[in-house]
Amino acid sequence: MKWLKEVDGELWLTEDDRENLKLSYRVKKVIHAEQSPFQHVMILDTYDFGPTLVLDGVIQTTSIDGFIYNEMITHIPMMTHPKPENVLIIGGGDCGVAREVVKYDSVTRVDMVEIDELVVKLSKKHLPEVSGNLSDPRVNFIYADGTKHVRNQPNQYDVVIIDSSDPIGPATQLFSLEFYTGVAASLKADGLMVCQSQSPIFHMDIVNETQTKLKTLFPHTDVYTAVVPTYPGGLWSFSLGSKKYTPESIATGWDKAASYVNADILERCFSIPEFMKQALK
Amino acid sequence: MKWLKEVDGELWLTEDDRENLKLSYRVKKVIHAEQSPFQHVMILDTYDFGPTLVLDGVIQTTSIDGFIYNEMITHIPMMTHPKPENVLIIGGGDCGVAREVVKYDSVTRVDMVEIDELVVKLSKKHLPEVSGNLSDPRVNFIYADGTKHVRNQPNQYDVVIIDSSDPIGPATQLFSLEFYTGVAASLKADGLMVCQSQSPIFHMDIVNETQTKLKTLFPHTDVYTAVVPTYPGGLWSFSLGSKKYTPESIATGWDKAASYVNADILERCFSIPEFMKQALK
Repeated sequence: MKWLKEVDGELWLTEDDRENLKLSYRVKKVIHAEQSPFQHVMILDTYDFGPTLVLDGVIQTTSIDGFIYNEMITHIPMMTHPKPENVLIIGGGDCGVAREVVKYDSVTRVDMVEIDELVVKLSKKHLPEVSGNLSDPRVNFIYADGTKHVRNQPNQYDVVIIDSSDPIGPATQLFSLEFYTGVAASLKADGLMVCQSQSPIFHMDIVNETQTKLKTLFPHTDVYTAVVPTYPGGLWSFSLGSKKYTPESIATGWDKAASYVNADILERCFSIPEFMKQALK
Repeated sequence: MKWLKEVDGELWLTEDDRENLKLSYRVKKVIHAEQSPFQHVMILDTYDFGPTLVLDGVIQTTSIDGFIYNEMITHIPMMTHPKPENVLIIGGGDCGVAREVVKYDSVTRVDMVEIDELVVKLSKKHLPEVSGNLSDPRVNFIYADGTKHVRNQPNQYDVVIIDSSDPIGPATQLFSLEFYTGVAASLKADGLMVCQSQSPIFHMDIVNETQTKLKTLFPHTDVYTAVVPTYPGGLWSFSLGSKKYTPESIATGWDKAASYVNADILERCFSIPEFMKQALK
């Protein structure tokens, strides 16, 4: 396994997605490693972050900090919409987003479209801290290509959450205007979507391009951030596109149990650092 | 140099301050490396973060993200005090904090007490992006032990900023109750102090202990956060202790040129994630 190396009797995972900055995690145990038809999937037990999902050598979610990303990509759109009923999750194989979505009583149906069934299977089995042993009957698992799915679901969803991996390999098309156009068509007339849009430190270009694309499709767009320790740069961006609702009074009625999100964080997350503001102009 | 390694013809700095998580930076060039009487000091030109100050193998500040830490440790206390005149900086050898402090016209005197003259010398020479070629006549450079300095300056300062390295080696005593007691004594009757208090992800114990210590000395204490990409965990905490003023309406009158701080960030930085709130209870 090219991503794992033994050094002085210790096992280390070194991510190789960045050329000039490497994060290395000491590994207790390889819980599972398997090549799926789409990517190389590992569950590693790490010393600092516990059981961890690794796709093609890149950490996707960990038992210790996975909640930050999953809560932030979920609760901001869900609190922006006054009554989300039909929700689509694209990607999100670790089940962490679905777990947050089903906290809303208004939700009647969650379509979870993940291309790789192996990721769901392993996350449910080995990452209960992330997946929460998700067994809510409202969640429909659909193992398919998200870009194709949205084309056949016009006017269906209140909220679409795009929980993709990085824009390399299979996830590249999840960052395309063509795909966002499909997402917009799959939303109801007052629907809204959110996607992860990479690191403002290293990829302000992607943050900007995502906003540019969403602006052609939605009257309201916005960017918010959260801190994800296991993503390079720490600061992470999310982009919102909405046909009608805007994230004002977003904390009103907040009553969920969560570990990162609270009313303050909901209200604060759209306050972005000055260098981001200037780069977005 | 044990911290630098050549791998396949590339030079890499690997920080060894954490046992089970390592950040490695590809190095273009060693600009300077020297053992001072206090620590090993390097200026490295890195690919992702530009010229970078490294003490005992640990990155302290970089040309690319150094502004985040320096702006956040400076402007929150400076905006909390209605008219800061005499300011003490303890540590801060990279001059980045002093550079922010002198942006306030009310300031008449800045005592910068740094134990290691070599850090100041090299930062002024090789890190202009951080030090800003600081040459303001209001700044007095004092090369001494900060813990001793505060004991001989009763009732002197409006604001004290403690810009220390991690609580290992020479900086350990800058996290002690004895030292904070000295700082409190060096402050005027309406003075306030701030210190960096480590990562809430990995060292919530230090955040908590710092608050506990400050609470014995100040009627008002508080914690705020910022995102520093080159510090492990990304999220970083700062602790405030104040004899009189509280950070309400902190953004009123904000008019400085800055890259991270803006009025939104000033108002929101005290909104902390739920897991921190609960751990602080």
